[in-house]
Amino acid sequence: MSLKAIAQLVALCSKKGIQHAILSPGSRCAPVTLAFVRHPKIHARTVSDERSAAFIGLGMAQQLDKAVALVCTSGSAAYNYAPAIAEAFFQQIPLLVITADRPPEWIDQWDGQTIRQSGIYGNHIKGSFNFPDEFGHPDKLWHANRIANEAINLAHQFPAGPVHINIPLREPFYPEDGQVFDYESNVRSIDPLYSNPPLEVEVRQKVQARLEKFNRILILPGQQKPNPKIQELLKRISKNNQAIIVTDSISNLQDVNTVSFHDHFLGIEKFQEELQPDLIISFGKSIISKGLKLFLRKSKAEHWHIQAQGYFPDTFQNLSRSIQCTPEYFLNFALDHLQSDLNFVNKWKGLNEKISIALPKIISEADFGEYKALSTCLKQIPAYSKLHLANSMTVRYVNFLGKKHQEIICNRGTSGIDGSNSTAVGCTFTTKDPVTLVTGDMAFFYDRNAFWHNYPMNNLRIILLNNQAGGIFRLIDGPSRQPELEEFFETKQKLTASYLAQEFGFEYHLATEENSLEMGLKNFYNKSIHPKILEIRTESPKNAEILKWVKSEIQKLFDLL
Amino acid sequence: MSLKAIAQLVALCSKKGIQHAILSPGSRCAPVTLAFVRHPKIHARTVSDERSAAFIGLGMAQQLDKAVALVCTSGSAAYNYAPAIAEAFFQQIPLLVITADRPPEWIDQWDGQTIRQSGIYGNHIKGSFNFPDEFGHPDKLWHANRIANEAINLAHQFPAGPVHINIPLREPFYPEDGQVFDYESNVRSIDPLYSNPPLEVEVRQKVQARLEKFNRILILPGQQKPNPKIQELLKRISKNNQAIIVTDSISNLQDVNTVSFHDHFLGIEKFQEELQPDLIISFGKSIISKGLKLFLRKSKAEHWHIQAQGYFPDTFQNLSRSIQCTPEYFLNFALDHLQSDLNFVNKWKGLNEKISIALPKIISEADFGEYKALSTCLKQIPAYSKLHLANSMTVRYVNFLGKKHQEIICNRGTSGIDGSNSTAVGCTFTTKDPVTLVTGDMAFFYDRNAFWHNYPMNNLRIILLNNQAGGIFRLIDGPSRQPELEEFFETKQKLTASYLAQEFGFEYHLATEENSLEMGLKNFYNKSIHPKILEIRTESPKNAEILKWVKSEIQKLFDLL
Repeated sequence: MSLKAIAQLVALCSKKGIQHAILSPGSRCAPVTLAFVRHPKIHARTVSDERSAAFIGLGMAQQLDKAVALVCTSGSAAYNYAPAIAEAFFQQIPLLVITADRPPEWIDQWDGQTIRQSGIYGNHIKGSFNFPDEFGHPDKLWHANRIANEAINLAHQFPAGPVHINIPLREPFYPEDGQVFDYESNVRSIDPLYSNPPLEVEVRQKVQARLEKFNRILILPGQQKPNPKIQELLKRISKNNQAIIVTDSISNLQDVNTVSFHDHFLGIEKFQEELQPDLIISFGKSIISKGLKLFLRKSKAEHWHIQAQGYFPDTFQNLSRSIQCTPEYFLNFALDHLQSDLNFVNKWKGLNEKISIALPKIISEADFGEYKALSTCLKQIPAYSKLHLANSMTVRYVNFLGKKHQEIICNRGTSGIDGSNSTAVGCTFTTKDPVTLVTGDMAFFYDRNAFWHNYPMNNLRIILLNNQAGGIFRLIDGPSRQPELEEFFETKQKLTASYLAQEFGFEYHLATEENSLEMGLKNFYNKSIHPKILEIRTESPKNAEILKWVKSEIQKLFDLL
Repeated sequence: MSLKAIAQLVALCSKKGIQHAILSPGSRCAPVTLAFVRHPKIHARTVSDERSAAFIGLGMAQQLDKAVALVCTSGSAAYNYAPAIAEAFFQQIPLLVITADRPPEWIDQWDGQTIRQSGIYGNHIKGSFNFPDEFGHPDKLWHANRIANEAINLAHQFPAGPVHINIPLREPFYPEDGQVFDYESNVRSIDPLYSNPPLEVEVRQKVQARLEKFNRILILPGQQKPNPKIQELLKRISKNNQAIIVTDSISNLQDVNTVSFHDHFLGIEKFQEELQPDLIISFGKSIISKGLKLFLRKSKAEHWHIQAQGYFPDTFQNLSRSIQCTPEYFLNFALDHLQSDLNFVNKWKGLNEKISIALPKIISEADFGEYKALSTCLKQIPAYSKLHLANSMTVRYVNFLGKKHQEIICNRGTSGIDGSNSTAVGCTFTTKDPVTLVTGDMAFFYDRNAFWHNYPMNNLRIILLNNQAGGIFRLIDGPSRQPELEEFFETKQKLTASYLAQEFGFEYHLATEENSLEMGLKNFYNKSIHPKILEIRTESPKNAEILKWVKSEIQKLFDLL
């Protein structure tokens, strides 16, 4: 009976469009594993380290906009999913997390692989369900079906996120010879019809009246996937000088018309006043730029956040209006009511323009280091490659370097370094286009089990910025002054990816200066049966020096203004 | 003020005997990191992967019987601790888990590295505390000191376990030049005096009267550390034939007088009745043997569990008395009141004896495979080596092989494969004696980040049973019948530890048959500046065959009885 309910769950997954499952080996979970593997429309893969498995699932769901099912056995396996689940929760990525469990009577009885799995993901899950462990009563199959419907619907409902179904299972775990899973084609599906209603007329009038009072408007898209409709709307707004649009790389809305070099001038005291907005309109998720955050927190501007549902964060400490509609709807409406002072707009655009011209020249004159290497790489990564960025310095450097033409993906939900390899690997399972991961050595070696499976990742290209340390700690002021810098912050180590490359079958190229970097990039995007690693070895103190030098060159530029 | 409270926390750790901290790099946690690093009496190490860091801390605390402090930064770092925390919770190992956090006003505001850390370890932590984030009111330093006292005391109070202090921190995270941590030598310490009171006279009389009604008594020590006093008591009981004592390897109480080969004969139908106990007296934590569990669950015997405090598990479904005192006290008392039928005792001892003589002969005649290789290795691992076993097949094989003379350590709290390398690495930080880890390929590669740090582990010896698959799935009946066996259960892979050995500086030896195994073992325990890996390559199907063959040989032996 348990098998029947599990077959129904999997049939429902398929009916609701879930096409992929990432399984991890185990015996308790065998009925669920087999139900996914044997379903004709679901593609199942197995990954042994659950921490990586969950990030791989996340990397797939991120691309597919559809939950991926994760299945693990009982015990601590479930906890190894937790880092990815927290990331999915804050990045709003749908995941259907299925954990096999002992039946409730065996919890805490000191039997093997038994922990307290019910509700284990605490505050980082959209919903937690316990599957029935008994099917004696006829209502139990209904209960199981209802849980499956609720969980899958909840995962996809905006804002999307992870949900958890804990399934208690008793032996036997394996079907008898000849026993088949009964995937009912007419399994009952509760299908929500989601709708994003327009703002009521009175609300529109209110917003319009208020909007017309501002004339230094800053539009701030947070992290989101590429969206041509929004891009088009922003283009019109920007062209008409109706507002200034400030775009971090993870907004995926950078454009010639948007400001993307803000990191370089927002800290400059003398521009502060001219750049002050009186209204900030944000949508999407988080932003990266610390300078931008600090600038906006200091400003006296009102802040409106546009979002159809979910809680509204007060990221800049001056949120005054939460407007419940889609960004696209809002921008369409606002298009007729936005206006900005030309001096304000020109100041932003002017400074942005200045950097966009000066920075490439400054970098070309800089010594070789990760800043320059990354600049070189970004130019050669094809526009049709998905571009994954690891956290810590990688994503910051990329943000410094202005407008990108690739889709940018980065785990900014929790901003951890723990799953960036796996997320990129998951992405390779969804596309034949190249998937590029730019990462630092700490993030790269942290998640090395991302590659521990048997599935081809031949379209994966890894650019590893290896400074053999957590170089970020040398680049920020506090730790670089401490005698403990190298051991306890940078955690300096003589690491190289060459062994890992051999072990997992990567093509490997080492670059230590401009020529070898050019060599490495030359055929990097040629098709290959192996994934590739381009390791760029630099020195952490040298990188710190270069970063400082670039800053001082930009400062010189501003001193002349 | 925050710095003062943190200095006090660390001073209190030291005063209460905490001498080790495992830190992971981060900026938010910098004040805590520096407070531990700079304390003159605390030895701090840094490990970048928090999952491994926590298991390393666990491996140390397991040996030291004293909490180790773990310190990580905000965000998903905390969740990477979770697998080890669950293990510590069920294995009752004290850990002081310190996570840096954003102050409460910044939670859920989409700032970087911010998750919902308060109470994050749910039901797998003995206590969760939130450190004050403000010290304006004079009671706040008292509050911080009280939390520190409560947390550290709770971690050590029987049954020991992990506790969590979440510390919200605001910038600046780094002390100014010249600013020192004020480790007050007279920091207020609340010192509990733990006492294990004797049983009341009436209770003793009741127990005695009841005890004298049984005459087929089975004493069952669960997982525990070596305990010479208990060992001596059990020896007397066994010599006098007052009871039969059945010892899994993880009991660390195996002896010539105890039964250690029970896995081989408990499943045999014809012995069932003669082996039936009428009373099971257990103490310590879990047992491994599934055969023993099933045998005891089927029996009609009463079950008493002896334990000073904590919840009482009903592992065999017939717990009838929970007796709250220490095992040592109980055994001392029971010594005068235990008696067993000689036929019962002799049946157990006779069967055990038979296997102890026959098994070595059978194995010597067996083909080369992990069973035989492990038997060879166990004889050559010095008695003064700590012997860590990974879960899954390793610990089961070792249990089949009877009495061990080394201290056996295995993560049987959750029975996960996720942290056995790290636990062994942690152990090397506490002793100069050799630390041997016997592990399978799945557990070994899962936790490969155990070696990603800069500290010497020259006394580490790893015996890797590499069948290039989760071989256990071929050895149990259910999955071996499924067409999905190799991809989804065994997850077959062509792995070798040789690359990892090069990368992390291990001496490496490969054994594929008896001679190369003998060669590999020859100088294995010679002192070295490098840790060593002895990889024993075997074939999963062959191992399954051998296991079956050994079983059938033993069956033949019993057929003659």
